[in-house]
Amino acid sequence: MGIPLTSKNLNKTIKWLAQPTSLAWLQQAVENPLVVLIDHAHCERKAAGVAIQLMFRYPCEPGLAEALSPLAREELEHFERVISLIKSKGQSLKLLPAPPYGAALAKEIRKGEPERMLDSFLVSGLIEARSHERMSLLAIHSLEEELRQLYTDLLASEARHFCIYWRLAEERFGRDVTVCRLEELAKVESAILQSLHPEPRMHS
Amino acid sequence: MGIPLTSKNLNKTIKWLAQPTSLAWLQQAVENPLVVLIDHAHCERKAAGVAIQLMFRYPCEPGLAEALSPLAREELEHFERVISLIKSKGQSLKLLPAPPYGAALAKEIRKGEPERMLDSFLVSGLIEARSHERMSLLAIHSLEEELRQLYTDLLASEARHFCIYWRLAEERFGRDVTVCRLEELAKVESAILQSLHPEPRMHS
Repeated sequence: MGIPLTSKNLNKTIKWLAQPTSLAWLQQAVENPLVVLIDHAHCERKAAGVAIQLMFRYPCEPGLAEALSPLAREELEHFERVISLIKSKGQSLKLLPAPPYGAALAKEIRKGEPERMLDSFLVSGLIEARSHERMSLLAIHSLEEELRQLYTDLLASEARHFCIYWRLAEERFGRDVTVCRLEELAKVESAILQSLHPEPRMHS
Repeated sequence: MGIPLTSKNLNKTIKWLAQPTSLAWLQQAVENPLVVLIDHAHCERKAAGVAIQLMFRYPCEPGLAEALSPLAREELEHFERVISLIKSKGQSLKLLPAPPYGAALAKEIRKGEPERMLDSFLVSGLIEARSHERMSLLAIHSLEEELRQLYTDLLASEARHFCIYWRLAEERFGRDVTVCRLEELAKVESAILQSLHPEPRMHS
């Protein structure tokens, strides 16, 4: 059994996230474990897709492929693990309409370079940070032991992935510019999540 | 030292390829090992990109993600190995204009479903088969031992990747339809390669 849901359990705010996840999200997610699991599979695939997209957009950027190719592999590995669990429950990957989160964050990415590169790294990093935070909660509060184990196993790399994106940004844009822009984007990210999306999702 | 280039060495036609690679290509590739190596890195990344693109286009197709996600991971692993070798030679990933091969093959993919799915699997499979054939040649004829070793190590999975695409097609469309369309596409594929592209590439 998971630990009872109290706001006290949500207080471990991840550094860089402007606001912690609400109790309402956790309640919604814990009550809909299978939908969230299927959505999580889609998220892992999307995360791999985004990393590979960046490798195509900046094909010769030194150090970028070396950082993002192993990250994409790891996301795919997680994707495979999650779909295998979904199948073991007699379920399959269903298409779920995405919540507004990803598209709203993508809108914050400025069009011109090099700003587009900086923002792309930081938006991806923030999504990884939020995933880490939410998976930490699911690792504690999921009602099924199998799910608690899954989220426990996967969450460590989400934090590492945030660090990869952070480093890609800091190496190219310096610490001050990176911190300043990350703080701006983190506020937007938290604002997007302020009203709970009615459908249970990793980023509802 | 590689084995002397004679047309006799090229006679091991890969099943399904309508025509074997020309001696002219092999000569061009062996004389330009670094350009071909850099192009090969781009090819590995593209192969991963195509697999992931198919996973996004058919997100809920049973059995597809289970086949293509590990394939994409393996392509990325190869990509990392190739860029690491490029770097060890004091070089870096340069952008190389692509030869007409990929775009010409993509044009053969029919627009409507389910033909688009079948053709996508078979075109990807043929590219893997051609890569396998050419890497087998480079594994024998490259002048540097390091390159012969690299291509030897990588080529086994190209044949496996052809089989994965073949199986995805056959399971969904049956053997007769698959063989018939593959033969049509294989003729086009060989025709595209008939005139050697002036720039040395994996698919020139």
